[in-house]
Amino acid sequence: MNKVLVFGHKNPDTDTITSAIVYAYLKQQIGIEAEAVRLGEVNNETKFALEKFGFEAPRLISSVVGEAAQVILVDHNEFQQSADGIEEVQITEVIDHHRVANFQTSDPLYYRAEPVGCTATIINKIFKENGVAVPANIAGLMLSAIVSDTLLFKSPTCTEQDVKAGEELAKIAEVDVAEYGLAMLKAGADLSDKSLEDLLSLDAKEFQFGEYKSVVAQVNAVDVNDVLGRQEELESLLNKNVAENGLDLFFFVVTDILNNDSTAVAIGQVADASAKAFGAEIVNGRIQLPGVVSRKKQIVPVLTDALK
Amino acid sequence: MNKVLVFGHKNPDTDTITSAIVYAYLKQQIGIEAEAVRLGEVNNETKFALEKFGFEAPRLISSVVGEAAQVILVDHNEFQQSADGIEEVQITEVIDHHRVANFQTSDPLYYRAEPVGCTATIINKIFKENGVAVPANIAGLMLSAIVSDTLLFKSPTCTEQDVKAGEELAKIAEVDVAEYGLAMLKAGADLSDKSLEDLLSLDAKEFQFGEYKSVVAQVNAVDVNDVLGRQEELESLLNKNVAENGLDLFFFVVTDILNNDSTAVAIGQVADASAKAFGAEIVNGRIQLPGVVSRKKQIVPVLTDALK
Repeated sequence: MNKVLVFGHKNPDTDTITSAIVYAYLKQQIGIEAEAVRLGEVNNETKFALEKFGFEAPRLISSVVGEAAQVILVDHNEFQQSADGIEEVQITEVIDHHRVANFQTSDPLYYRAEPVGCTATIINKIFKENGVAVPANIAGLMLSAIVSDTLLFKSPTCTEQDVKAGEELAKIAEVDVAEYGLAMLKAGADLSDKSLEDLLSLDAKEFQFGEYKSVVAQVNAVDVNDVLGRQEELESLLNKNVAENGLDLFFFVVTDILNNDSTAVAIGQVADASAKAFGAEIVNGRIQLPGVVSRKKQIVPVLTDALK
Repeated sequence: MNKVLVFGHKNPDTDTITSAIVYAYLKQQIGIEAEAVRLGEVNNETKFALEKFGFEAPRLISSVVGEAAQVILVDHNEFQQSADGIEEVQITEVIDHHRVANFQTSDPLYYRAEPVGCTATIINKIFKENGVAVPANIAGLMLSAIVSDTLLFKSPTCTEQDVKAGEELAKIAEVDVAEYGLAMLKAGADLSDKSLEDLLSLDAKEFQFGEYKSVVAQVNAVDVNDVLGRQEELESLLNKNVAENGLDLFFFVVTDILNNDSTAVAIGQVADASAKAFGAEIVNGRIQLPGVVSRKKQIVPVLTDALK
């Protein structure tokens, strides 16, 4: 019980899984007993990155109760996206790059959030601040996180700091960013082994927009019709999910990683309002979101403002 | 409206006022139009520090509405301790050393909290990270904040980092810490020009402990009887405050800065519970808190746990 657990959000993505591994490694180097764990299944993109750099997926947990007295959150802070029982343990650190919401502590803590594209970009700085060298395989994981979160530096969330960190880490990891990055993104966009049901939960995050309990899920694809082709089945699954979880909105976004556009399907009592929030309408059950690729920067703030 | 406002909490103390001035100065040095403002009267201790190092008090505001579109919070994050209208503006940064509670944003931001004794200790690091030199008068302000928050390095909130920053800043400011620090603390503990009513609001902070709306106020004194001598008048004022503001608890703490102990007077429906939280009882209207000097580290967490 003396060790500190390090984990990212539910429905983990590459930044969440690799940042947990990398930050636990950093803590161990400065003499702190830390273990990376995960709150859900590892997706195909993350598997590709872990294999490439020789890592196993962290241990799976669902609740922190009985696991540790102290935890470190990476890549998230909102309690509904975190481990069950999060209110019962002491959060000693948060390393994140999202807005702050539905988060609180009793005690002072180390909270480091920066408005950059990726948690790994911040962790790369913390390595330097602590004078700890970044080994090649750890650099490879951080690079993978940056490529994933910034869609190979093309997302509007990508900052100069992410680009600089990416270049620096690619050198240490000895990989060609463009080639490796595209291969990794394509591995993640290969949805052939996924059912529509899988796709809805792959990267789904819960949000409270004003009074409305909402889920915003995002899937990357090379061809959005791979996902949206079976519209009726999709809508029926979304309707079921909304009913079962008492949601006011399920906002399901499919992002075209080659053209950097998105298409959304919205279900729930505020579905029309969610389309209007983007100056759009629901046409044939779809909302076109040209140029939108970032949930954090281009979707969540828009829905937060429109539904408050 | 393009400038960013920098401010600390209501009922400002030395760390809040000086951190606003110092951080606005740092921002200006890196090309950002920033103005320090304050949310309340400057206390005697802070006046002493400002005069010593040749600064005026920042401009007083109560609401941020119409003042700026973007703000930076120093030394606090809880909205009930912040400016009126805080929900209407964008918070771009928080530099703090408290717990996180009743705080949220729509967008990602720079949030830098560290569990150290003083905001100035963190800002001193940020100067270095940005390669900005600390002038002597700015160093003097930061030193004053550290002395104030750590009660001359004697509070349990004081960390090695605060001590190191204090030594470094004292050298730049060319002051004898022990001598200047005690003079500053005594200026703050000189309550002769204050009514009991003034003392209740001088350093009062609102908290929500579970369901209970609470205020924890703290006053430093050389002799606690200067404040607690008129017990009846004090209790009557506290009762009035509890009734007028619909409080469940007013926890009024007088801290003996020479002996590093505190005595509290608690009023409200959970007054007895608040004493019990410290393993104490209310005797003759007072709660003895030996060794307690830090609201943040020794009072708020105890009440949070006991009243949740």
